[in-house]
Amino acid sequence: METLPVLYIGNKNYSSWSLRAWLGLKVAGVEFEEKLVQLRSDAFAAQAPVFSPTAKVPAFFDGRKTIWEAMAILEYIADTQPDTLLWPLDMDIRAIARAVSLEMHGGFGPLRSHMPMNCRKSLPGLGRGPGVDADIARIGEIFKTCRTQYGQGGDFLFGHFSIADAMYAPVVTRFKTYGVTLDPVGNAYMETILALPDMTAWYNDATVEEWIIEDSEVK
Amino acid sequence: METLPVLYIGNKNYSSWSLRAWLGLKVAGVEFEEKLVQLRSDAFAAQAPVFSPTAKVPAFFDGRKTIWEAMAILEYIADTQPDTLLWPLDMDIRAIARAVSLEMHGGFGPLRSHMPMNCRKSLPGLGRGPGVDADIARIGEIFKTCRTQYGQGGDFLFGHFSIADAMYAPVVTRFKTYGVTLDPVGNAYMETILALPDMTAWYNDATVEEWIIEDSEVK
Repeated sequence: METLPVLYIGNKNYSSWSLRAWLGLKVAGVEFEEKLVQLRSDAFAAQAPVFSPTAKVPAFFDGRKTIWEAMAILEYIADTQPDTLLWPLDMDIRAIARAVSLEMHGGFGPLRSHMPMNCRKSLPGLGRGPGVDADIARIGEIFKTCRTQYGQGGDFLFGHFSIADAMYAPVVTRFKTYGVTLDPVGNAYMETILALPDMTAWYNDATVEEWIIEDSEVK
Repeated sequence: METLPVLYIGNKNYSSWSLRAWLGLKVAGVEFEEKLVQLRSDAFAAQAPVFSPTAKVPAFFDGRKTIWEAMAILEYIADTQPDTLLWPLDMDIRAIARAVSLEMHGGFGPLRSHMPMNCRKSLPGLGRGPGVDADIARIGEIFKTCRTQYGQGGDFLFGHFSIADAMYAPVVTRFKTYGVTLDPVGNAYMETILALPDMTAWYNDATVEEWIIEDSEVK
């Protein structure tokens, strides 16, 4: 019996980076075993330095090597299993998809700081700290531009589901939690992401009491 | 006569993201026209939103499309000109190279904040703010691990020059400026980067008075 690769993730309610890797692997049809390690726990402190050189989630172990950083995990699947179509085939469009993905990977600090992912909560109007409106405006522009110019009439940013959608999925959950609405194209895109069966499954798991850290919401 | 692609960059003394894209293109042998726009100037405020959707440097215009984000620019060259060898050919090793590159793209906030790039200065002992030592330790570990495990006896992180080296080059300049030394492997790696002819050229240009912002060093 073949051993499945392992994806180490944090609490589904809070861990946006975990969601990115998990969702990308799921939609790509990659089979894996999921190992959830409670954020901020003694178990995490003990195990994380073992399963990742950065002591962070997510980390992907394929039986031979560990890959860390959510986007690197998905790039590896795109490299080794190109039929998953995790990137657009057209190299010009792929360049744009990578640019918006990297914008998310390294940017939007105000949004990430003031609107931490918290799937089970509804906090409309909250989280509007300094710089957040500018982040929301830029993300709305990305959703609209990509879906309109590169969406090929499909529901995702670049036609079919790609790494770019995985990168922005946690932002969509934040917009849902904090009651952020966009223009019609952006709103329709958010509905597309939230309606993914894998997102429904994630949401269901996110609210498991065992993994909720009530008194100190994790950023 | 063919028009060269254009790379928009900021002041060479301060703009670490500009250096990443510029160095990667140079070492890969990509011909391009360089357009330097003074950071924090009226010209920058006017031009940046035109040459990039993020209004930031670097941005790469190939005559048909704009690519932003330094790593996306270099990924595009790796995609379209694979003979530049900007990524390791082995997909397992490439996964590690992407992971460390993305670690740099999205992380090391304390280092980036407390040790801003400033090529012309020598400030040994300064910049040791909270979290900086941990960042230095992790980067030293990356240099040592990659060069030892994947360096194939060569001078770079993954044998030949790759995007990972471009991503860490500004860190090497910071370590030079702030007098940070590593173990022998890390120190030798830093010498390799600083000895690149393209790095010498960058340093020479960095100290041009016209581009120096004396009174408020730019992060």
